[in-house]
Amino acid sequence: MSKKLGEQSLIFETQPKIISTANIVGPLEGKGPLKEFYDFILKDNLNNLDSWEKAESYMLEWAVKKAAEKGYKTIDDIDIMFAGDLLNQLMSSHFAARQLARPFLGLYGACSTLVEGMIIGSVFIEGSFASNVISAVSSHHDAAERQYRFPTELGTQRPPISQWTVTGSGAMVISNTGESPKITTATVGKVIDMGIKDANAMGPAMAPAAADTIRQHLQDTDRLPNYYDMIYTGDLGKIGKALVIDLLKEKGNIDITSNYEDCGCLIYSEDQDTHSGASGCASSAITFTGYIYQKLLKNTLKKVLLVGTGSLHSPTSYLQRESLPGIAHAVSIEI
Amino acid sequence: MSKKLGEQSLIFETQPKIISTANIVGPLEGKGPLKEFYDFILKDNLNNLDSWEKAESYMLEWAVKKAAEKGYKTIDDIDIMFAGDLLNQLMSSHFAARQLARPFLGLYGACSTLVEGMIIGSVFIEGSFASNVISAVSSHHDAAERQYRFPTELGTQRPPISQWTVTGSGAMVISNTGESPKITTATVGKVIDMGIKDANAMGPAMAPAAADTIRQHLQDTDRLPNYYDMIYTGDLGKIGKALVIDLLKEKGNIDITSNYEDCGCLIYSEDQDTHSGASGCASSAITFTGYIYQKLLKNTLKKVLLVGTGSLHSPTSYLQRESLPGIAHAVSIEI
Repeated sequence: MSKKLGEQSLIFETQPKIISTANIVGPLEGKGPLKEFYDFILKDNLNNLDSWEKAESYMLEWAVKKAAEKGYKTIDDIDIMFAGDLLNQLMSSHFAARQLARPFLGLYGACSTLVEGMIIGSVFIEGSFASNVISAVSSHHDAAERQYRFPTELGTQRPPISQWTVTGSGAMVISNTGESPKITTATVGKVIDMGIKDANAMGPAMAPAAADTIRQHLQDTDRLPNYYDMIYTGDLGKIGKALVIDLLKEKGNIDITSNYEDCGCLIYSEDQDTHSGASGCASSAITFTGYIYQKLLKNTLKKVLLVGTGSLHSPTSYLQRESLPGIAHAVSIEI
Repeated sequence: MSKKLGEQSLIFETQPKIISTANIVGPLEGKGPLKEFYDFILKDNLNNLDSWEKAESYMLEWAVKKAAEKGYKTIDDIDIMFAGDLLNQLMSSHFAARQLARPFLGLYGACSTLVEGMIIGSVFIEGSFASNVISAVSSHHDAAERQYRFPTELGTQRPPISQWTVTGSGAMVISNTGESPKITTATVGKVIDMGIKDANAMGPAMAPAAADTIRQHLQDTDRLPNYYDMIYTGDLGKIGKALVIDLLKEKGNIDITSNYEDCGCLIYSEDQDTHSGASGCASSAITFTGYIYQKLLKNTLKKVLLVGTGSLHSPTSYLQRESLPGIAHAVSIEI
C-alpha cells in the first residue's frame, strides 16, 4: 500500500521511534536560555584541538556516541548513520564517521539536514532496512563564518539582519522498537528561490520555502495548524519567523501565530548580541534534541511539527551574483 | 520481515527498476572511447554560459529532464529527486532542483553519490514511499579543479598519479513498475582512511574503501565474485584499480581479475593525456547510464555490481594536513 500522502508527504505506519537524543554546545550557547537542556557545554570553541573544524567534528562524534549510550545501544547496534554539516565536503561528519566506523550516508541540505536525516532514516526503519539509525548534524560559528563570510578574527561588523551560526551538535537514535516519541508523517520540500541576494539575509531567503512546506504538509495531511501543539522551524531568526507568519496568512489563509516558534529565536537571549537569532545545522538540532524532546517526554507537548530550513547558497554562487535558494523539510513527531 | 542482509547490506524484494537513463558530457569525453553511449556532447565546457558552475548545473538539469523523457515520464511524475555533485554546497544540484521544482533531497558522498542516490531511492521505492525517483549527479573538470586544486588557467602540471575530473552528468529514473534492469541488493560502506595525504592520489585513497565494500558485499550476500558478469568501480583510475585487485587478493583471498573494471579507466583513451584516468561524480554516472546500461538492456551483461567510490577530503582538511578518507557503496543490478 502506498505510503505517499498527497503531493509531497509520506506516512509512517509503524511509526519509527526517537528512542534517545544527545547534544553538545559551545560556551555562548551554554550561557543561553536553553542551557539546562544541553548534555555538555564546551569551555571554549576550540576544545583544546588544532582547529575549529576539528572541534566541530569532535562535537558530532561526541553527540552520536552519547545518543547511542542514552538509548542503551552500542555504536555497533547502529545499522546506518545519516549525517551532514555546513563545512565543505561535510568535513566534520566524515571525520567523525571515520572514527565511528559504521555504514554511513552523507546528506547535505544546509541547515535542513537534521530533518532530512530523520525522514530518510525513518524510511529505512519503516521499510525494515534498519533497526536503529542515527540522524546527526553539527555546525561551528567560527568554522562556518570563515567559510561563508569572513574569518571571525577580522572582527567584521555584522548587519542587524544577520544570524549567529550555532556552535554545537545534536544526534538522535531512531529505532523500530520502543515507547518513545514517534515520527508519524514527513513532507519533503522543494528548492524555492525568491531572488534574495544578500548572503546575510538567510531568514528571509528560507522563509518562502518554510511557508511552502508547512502549507503543503497541512494540505497533504488534511490537518489544520492547531492539530499541532507546536510548529517549530529550524533557524529563520526573528525576521524570517515574522515572514513565515505573514506568508502563510497572505498566501494560504493559514494562521500559525498561536502555536509557532523558531528554534533560532530560542537559543540566545537579547543581551547576547546575536542580532536576528541563531542559524546553522545545530540550531534545530540542539533545540530539538534538548528542549523540544524533553517536552515530548514529559507530555508537555504531544504533537510537534519540526520544519528543518536550509539556505542553499554557496560562497561561489554568491560571488557569481546568484540569489539564495532555500529548502524546508518537515516531520511530525507525536506521543 | 527484515530486509537487512548480513552486516552492511540490504535486499530489495520488489526490485526497483531502472526504467531509463540519460547522460550529457563535455567535448573531451565526447572524443573518448565511449562516445557512442552519450546522449549529448557539449561543444565546449562553458556551453555559452557565464561560468563552469552554471554549465555543470545546466548539464544536471538536462540529464534529469532527458531521463524522465526517455522513461515516458513528465517531471511531475517524479516523486522525489536525489542528487549531489562535487561543488561546495551542492551548487549544481540545487540550482538544477530550483528549475525542476520537485521534492528534493541533497546527498554528498563525493564520487559515490550516484550509487548513494540509487540505494536511498530504491529504499523509498521498495517501501512504497515513492513510485518514481531520480538519482542524478554531475561534475565539471574546470569547476572542480579550481575548487579542489588549482584554476585550470594556471596550467599547473599534473602528476602522473592524478586523474581527470569528468565533465558530464548522468541521471536515471528508478520506478516501482516496468521490465527494466532491477536493483536487487545494496551494500552501504563505511568511511575508511589508510592515511594517504597526497590530494592527487585519490585512487589509492579510495581503493581500501572499495575493497572493503566489495568484500563485505560478497560476504553479506554469500556470493562469489563470479556471481557477477562484471564488477565496476566508479573512479579509481589505473593505480586505484590495481590496488583494489591486490587488496582483495591479499586481505580476502578474493580474485576479481577476470570480471572487474573501473569506469575511470574506460572514459578516456591513452592519447587523451588524462594520466591515471577519470574521476568525479560523473565518471560512474556517464559510464553506467550509457555503456553499462546499454549492455544490460541488450543482455550482454545480466548481473552487474556497481561500486560508487568517493574521496571525502576537502581543501580545508588537506591544508590542515589531514589524510583523505574514502567511502564506497555498492548496488547489484540484474535482469
